[in-house]
Amino acid sequence: MSERIPVGVLGATGMVGQHFVKFLANHPWFEITFVGASERNTGKKYSEATSWRLPGAMPETVAHLTVSECKPKGAPHIVFSAMDAAVATEIEQEFAKAGHTVLSNSRNHRMEPDVPLLVPELNSDHLSVLAAQKKARGWSGQIVTNPNCSTIVLTMALGPFAPFGIQRAVVTTMQAISGAGYPGVASMDITANVVPYIGSEEEKMEMETQKILGACDGRGFTNHPMQLSASCNRVPVVDGHLISVSVELESKPSEAEVRAAIEGFTATPQKLGLPSAPARPVIYLPQQDRPQPRRDVERENGMAVFVGRLRPCPVFDWKFLCLGHNTVRGAAGASVLNAELMKAQGLV
Amino acid sequence: MSERIPVGVLGATGMVGQHFVKFLANHPWFEITFVGASERNTGKKYSEATSWRLPGAMPETVAHLTVSECKPKGAPHIVFSAMDAAVATEIEQEFAKAGHTVLSNSRNHRMEPDVPLLVPELNSDHLSVLAAQKKARGWSGQIVTNPNCSTIVLTMALGPFAPFGIQRAVVTTMQAISGAGYPGVASMDITANVVPYIGSEEEKMEMETQKILGACDGRGFTNHPMQLSASCNRVPVVDGHLISVSVELESKPSEAEVRAAIEGFTATPQKLGLPSAPARPVIYLPQQDRPQPRRDVERENGMAVFVGRLRPCPVFDWKFLCLGHNTVRGAAGASVLNAELMKAQGLV
Amino acid sequence: MSERIPVGVLGATGMVGQHFVKFLANHPWFEITFVGASERNTGKKYSEATSWRLPGAMPETVAHLTVSECKPKGAPHIVFSAMDAAVATEIEQEFAKAGHTVLSNSRNHRMEPDVPLLVPELNSDHLSVLAAQKKARGWSGQIVTNPNCSTIVLTMALGPFAPFGIQRAVVTTMQAISGAGYPGVASMDITANVVPYIGSEEEKMEMETQKILGACDGRGFTNHPMQLSASCNRVPVVDGHLISVSVELESKPSEAEVRAAIEGFTATPQKLGLPSAPARPVIYLPQQDRPQPRRDVERENGMAVFVGRLRPCPVFDWKFLCLGHNTVRGAAGASVLNAELMKAQGLV
Amino acid sequence: MSERIPVGVLGATGMVGQHFVKFLANHPWFEITFVGASERNTGKKYSEATSWRLPGAMPETVAHLTVSECKPKGAPHIVFSAMDAAVATEIEQEFAKAGHTVLSNSRNHRMEPDVPLLVPELNSDHLSVLAAQKKARGWSGQIVTNPNCSTIVLTMALGPFAPFGIQRAVVTTMQAISGAGYPGVASMDITANVVPYIGSEEEKMEMETQKILGACDGRGFTNHPMQLSASCNRVPVVDGHLISVSVELESKPSEAEVRAAIEGFTATPQKLGLPSAPARPVIYLPQQDRPQPRRDVERENGMAVFVGRLRPCPVFDWKFLCLGHNTVRGAAGASVLNAELMKAQGLV
Repeated sequence: MSERIPVGVLGATGMVGQHFVKFLANHPWFEITFVGASERNTGKKYSEATSWRLPGAMPETVAHLTVSECKPKGAPHIVFSAMDAAVATEIEQEFAKAGHTVLSNSRNHRMEPDVPLLVPELNSDHLSVLAAQKKARGWSGQIVTNPNCSTIVLTMALGPFAPFGIQRAVVTTMQAISGAGYPGVASMDITANVVPYIGSEEEKMEMETQKILGACDGRGFTNHPMQLSASCNRVPVVDGHLISVSVELESKPSEAEVRAAIEGFTATPQKLGLPSAPARPVIYLPQQDRPQPRRDVERENGMAVFVGRLRPCPVFDWKFLCLGHNTVRGAAGASVLNAELMKAQGLV
Repeated sequence: MSERIPVGVLGATGMVGQHFVKFLANHPWFEITFVGASERNTGKKYSEATSWRLPGAMPETVAHLTVSECKPKGAPHIVFSAMDAAVATEIEQEFAKAGHTVLSNSRNHRMEPDVPLLVPELNSDHLSVLAAQKKARGWSGQIVTNPNCSTIVLTMALGPFAPFGIQRAVVTTMQAISGAGYPGVASMDITANVVPYIGSEEEKMEMETQKILGACDGRGFTNHPMQLSASCNRVPVVDGHLISVSVELESKPSEAEVRAAIEGFTATPQKLGLPSAPARPVIYLPQQDRPQPRRDVERENGMAVFVGRLRPCPVFDWKFLCLGHNTVRGAAGASVLNAELMKAQGLV
Repeated sequence: MSERIPVGVLGATGMVGQHFVKFLANHPWFEITFVGASERNTGKKYSEATSWRLPGAMPETVAHLTVSECKPKGAPHIVFSAMDAAVATEIEQEFAKAGHTVLSNSRNHRMEPDVPLLVPELNSDHLSVLAAQKKARGWSGQIVTNPNCSTIVLTMALGPFAPFGIQRAVVTTMQAISGAGYPGVASMDITANVVPYIGSEEEKMEMETQKILGACDGRGFTNHPMQLSASCNRVPVVDGHLISVSVELESKPSEAEVRAAIEGFTATPQKLGLPSAPARPVIYLPQQDRPQPRRDVERENGMAVFVGRLRPCPVFDWKFLCLGHNTVRGAAGASVLNAELMKAQGLV
Repeated sequence: MSERIPVGVLGATGMVGQHFVKFLANHPWFEITFVGASERNTGKKYSEATSWRLPGAMPETVAHLTVSECKPKGAPHIVFSAMDAAVATEIEQEFAKAGHTVLSNSRNHRMEPDVPLLVPELNSDHLSVLAAQKKARGWSGQIVTNPNCSTIVLTMALGPFAPFGIQRAVVTTMQAISGAGYPGVASMDITANVVPYIGSEEEKMEMETQKILGACDGRGFTNHPMQLSASCNRVPVVDGHLISVSVELESKPSEAEVRAAIEGFTATPQKLGLPSAPARPVIYLPQQDRPQPRRDVERENGMAVFVGRLRPCPVFDWKFLCLGHNTVRGAAGASVLNAELMKAQGLV
């Protein structure tokens, strides 16, 4: 009999939900026992309710589960929210009110002044706001969010630069089609093409980054003062957001210092040995033409961020590329790592 | 009998050469009468010597020409150079010495202090250096170059911004595979992938832009003082280089002023009515998700540059996208427009 | 003032409708004066009602037209139907009843026993059934259909083989994404992938081919007795359906005889000099690796079918590849050519 | 200390060699201790001699090996040949003469009358020819080959049909770019395109299939009498050859009988529990639009063949799709499975 902690996935039949189901298959701590979806699927087997669109077969252990309504009653304490933004606010709050810990991938609560926008490698101290959250909202449960898929790749890559004092950054993304869900981007739009627009993405990157890298005093957050300009593009790549970054740093480190910072970067999840944490969260690839989405995105189970081509920037100080797996580190894996951190810290 | 001016193409059987052949088919002023290639093809019909890789059929008028050696003897006065950089220097100089006007797409002479790096819409006055070139080198002919394919797209788009005082720009390119010639990029490298490296491309963009936008006093050039940082990427697109630009401007124009500058931008080629000049060299596309390579690159015969998504930049002043046809405006078409300008100004 | 014949397009704002608008721009005989669409677009300018998704700009002459309801009143005599199959039956019949000639690209009436499934190069005699159609249905107008986009490519390519007695054919298609309209195929389904299923496509190809190549006695049709097996696949190509064909022929022609039949193939549209008819409807490409969708589909304005790699088949007699433009020869261009034929024969 | 059997890879630095290195990492029986390559790489570390082009990192255990000449001296008994056809004949024979067992992926010896063209699921009895091979050639070693990458997918899929008496088959392939090695197919040729030609591929499929499915009497082979016609196309897919098949069967089985034959198909490698053998070598996918290369090719470690869309063929009896991993089941994995079979049967 399983000793694993039961968890639920809200919005389990959609694309993000499927990524949670895939990521949690064989998880050492958590076991999906609850799959929530919209009413029209309630009562069906997960395998019948779901058009499985991920490579490989649907995990057997979830296939036979019966789809439930997205209601707290009967749901496990920990629930992952993969719901559409259109419905997430109310349902997530209902779960939090009913005492559940909600790990949300939806954008709805990310910028709330009492909700952590958590990246365990960067701001595990932001969890200290949870007491204030529960008190202010009168919840016995709590909501913790993870960033937008492009934001997390950028912030992870900026992590090693933070000690040098990030002042300004100009970034351009080249984002995978899987970031848009299913059916998502029309093939007539993206085949042999680039679409230089992703709705609200630039605003999300710019705002979320400042919150993530900012400070938390237990009652609320102070934005990081860096200036950030993001330009977001969709490219015909299946998985993996690649970002071109130019960054200005206060302390003017040498190349060797930057490389050492990247290669030595480690953080709370690594110290705690969280099961989904990569051994090294940010990995420098020395080849002159890497990282590349198709070749590098699946490395480290999609949980590390890859940096390459560090070189002087004629306008700022350094420029480089970074890459991360948008549906793993940028969605399901991020939420699960958040839950692991909270478990390890006794917060669930 | 044709009244058109006979011209030659050096390196006519290669990919760039094929683009010249295609672009010059039905040209109102020029007629290809000479196709030069390496020795192993000399004496063959162009149709036999050439693996035609462009869409559509090889132009009949060139197909039957006999391939010549790349030697001045018997070549027409005007020659377009589509030669590999490995061999271009010596041959181009040999032609110039023998009295020919060489319009070169090769990188070899671009940064020479007495060779114009010409974009007719931007720096037609740079042709004034030719007298000094001829004198210093003892040539009866002359060499004029056009920029690298990504440089020209960027500089054309920056043209309307120049009056506002360009101080700094950070740009990221997403470049088409056709920019690498044939066989060029391996499909195993670029299918559903991005390759974040193009050899020497960033250096070329940074240097060439400063020369093009700089001044010429008839004896030499002074670089434009702007700071420029370029990050160059290859994306799985057939034709069209798309560039994300963030720019800092001295005079802090309003959005309306920038839009008016773009929409009113016109220059020498338009005033002279050069046959390959687009009616408007820089065209603003108001749709929120344009320009797009596959949908916009063939417009205006590939000779205009398309700008879109002008919006405030949180770090500098403005950010926008620009797109141009790399093998037309960025290569063959650029060289031909240079020749048209020189013809109209009595320089050939 | 224009002397051209006014025509209308029903379903003008959709993808197929846009292809009609593009194809008819600058048509020497026809001029679009009527654009019909669903109620929610009625009264708007075409340019406002339409998300133009084709390369290049929307034709100016149509952009300013006001969108009408799809009702016969006020519509020109000739109308092209680009409507969804879901609504086409009733509306097309209403137009025919009201005296209009409907050239339909919809599948709805194709297999009707009194409606021509017309390919002018193959079965112009099938128009003789129109008298019976009008009489039986009590219409003063008439309906003529063109085939499915993959069927027309196959049947055109089989045209030159018909005199040898086609007995059996096994074909596999590799079809472009544009055949599915917009948004059509999800990029998550087709990027770097093949989808080996297109709903109802195999059945359409098998049935329609037998009708097109069959006989017409003025009252109805007799199917061609050939056996045909089709396997239909979607590939990541923008335009152009490529078909691999193995065919068994009664009279066992030599390779030279087959090649001569292809190269000499000409038919009614060529004799009549119809403006959209290619000089040669079926063109043999001798290169060993052609036809290729991206390189050949735009040749001959997309109106010819390209055949290549004719070689002996170890199971039947001959195998070869054929390619045609699915949205031109396979849709808008087919319908327009049908109208041209009817005009030339005095049937409109 | 490892108890595994040492093995070598000839041509280890090339693409096929890299696939062997990847496939054999962590193999339970075999351990690579020898990497052979051309002279210019001899003496270097494998990691220095090799441009690693596969997703993920180079296996550590091989990275530090020193590259040897492709000479028998010092090489382990079992060697896998990933060499170019241009050099394979002589070197493979030199190894066999020197007592080695050569498992070759090269085409050179496949059609030799005393060399098994082995697919363990289909013709393990063909190994009985080895005694005759050794005797006739005076070798103390032996050569065993695996088929071309498209042939093996087809023959595996035909395996369950064999008992019904395969009479004729017409097949069309849609093959991945990885089948052409590196740099292989130029991106200018295949991006958003299909290339309907792969040199010698159709001939290989037609000949090899008849040998594989044919009989062996211990002295030589008798071809299977089936007629086979293959049309081979390259599509823009990274891994996985998809084949459309129409097949005529002598005993006219029902759909249920064919499905049962596929689902019950098992063979020697499964009975012997060979480590690389999939639990079921041929897997039927019931969804209407499968198998798909990108979604299915990595299942079962790339060692099974996937069949789908079984449906009646209007010309023959049945048509279906099949898919297999061209660089795994079609190359490295095939060779390794052959070695496992030989080991299990005491032939090495």
